[in-house]
Amino acid sequence: MEIAILLFDKLTMLDAIGPYEVLSRIPDARVKMVAAEAGIIRNDRGSLGIVADYSLDEVVRPDVVVVPGGLGQSDLMNDEKVLSWIRKVHETSRWTTSVCTGSLLLASAGLLKGLKATSHWLAYDALRSLGAEPVSERVVIEGRIITAAGVSAGIDMALALVARECGDDTAGAIQLQIEYDPQPPFDAGAPHKAPPELVELLRSKSRFRH
Amino acid sequence: MEIAILLFDKLTMLDAIGPYEVLSRIPDARVKMVAAEAGIIRNDRGSLGIVADYSLDEVVRPDVVVVPGGLGQSDLMNDEKVLSWIRKVHETSRWTTSVCTGSLLLASAGLLKGLKATSHWLAYDALRSLGAEPVSERVVIEGRIITAAGVSAGIDMALALVARECGDDTAGAIQLQIEYDPQPPFDAGAPHKAPPELVELLRSKSRFRH
Repeated sequence: MEIAILLFDKLTMLDAIGPYEVLSRIPDARVKMVAAEAGIIRNDRGSLGIVADYSLDEVVRPDVVVVPGGLGQSDLMNDEKVLSWIRKVHETSRWTTSVCTGSLLLASAGLLKGLKATSHWLAYDALRSLGAEPVSERVVIEGRIITAAGVSAGIDMALALVARECGDDTAGAIQLQIEYDPQPPFDAGAPHKAPPELVELLRSKSRFRH
Repeated sequence: MEIAILLFDKLTMLDAIGPYEVLSRIPDARVKMVAAEAGIIRNDRGSLGIVADYSLDEVVRPDVVVVPGGLGQSDLMNDEKVLSWIRKVHETSRWTTSVCTGSLLLASAGLLKGLKATSHWLAYDALRSLGAEPVSERVVIEGRIITAAGVSAGIDMALALVARECGDDTAGAIQLQIEYDPQPPFDAGAPHKAPPELVELLRSKSRFRH
């Protein structure tokens, strides 16, 4: 099973690596890290570099596509090279997925029209303006498109994908391998659970405000 | 605040990137990805490359040290260059931490003698044989040493560190930024929760069996 994870400058690294750590453990997985051009990609905080081993034109028929988000997503909203690659690989993929604001790229590519989808909680309005129906869920499955909420939600998304593609036993084995028994210190990782003043503060700083 | 994350060939990438995504959001964080030699490091599955921007001798006094685990940890158990770096930076660090089998490196460096510590659930016996007292907890804090359980536990460890270092408000804000409201598909991410036959299967394949 070929899995393509899209990289681009200023991505949020955990958006990509959460799913990577799960999907790369599928028994016959061949993961390809892909970007417009092969080479080193720096993340949204600048302090981390990751290698794109493949350019877009070298990855033509992946079974699974993962599109992460992060600051750099906004630079790609009219990047026809990337958007047409997303459209093209989606024609034959088994699963086309996004994490965080990666769903805005799926939407810009025209994949989410009229479909339920999720994104980082600060990007629901942006997602709606692109023709999708934003829902406040951790993982949203619409046919063979799976969108995940912000950053850390890619782990849950990838496990859900493995369960559907390979069965619960394989997904459960991977969950145990990565000891995914999360114990967040606060029950406040979603806006409806967090202190309202914190939610407002982050909203006021958000590049997605309308 | 300077944060050093150790990289080495065949590390498990999420061990490093989970803490990275949390710690790099501390307001004054300066994260340095460091390895024996600066350059590209490949992970334990081979399909992912990450950049070490710094060599060990360039990072001498970090405030926070993160030591991840993964297959390659076993190659470093007698690597005096790496172990002496761990000992040296620990002298002045505010927090010295590990994720997964990274704790075996802390133990090899002599940091865990007689201390409670955790690791990947398959590595408790190895941890004990190195003089630590393994405990089956997600995050173990002993003075200024924090050890985390397997792979995904680094996210919880880093949030616990931020809460202690910067306060609950900052930790809560970061948790909300990365939308860390985990919803694993199975309540089976730890050995005492998983099907016993799966636990035995993974144990029988483990490189840590005794």
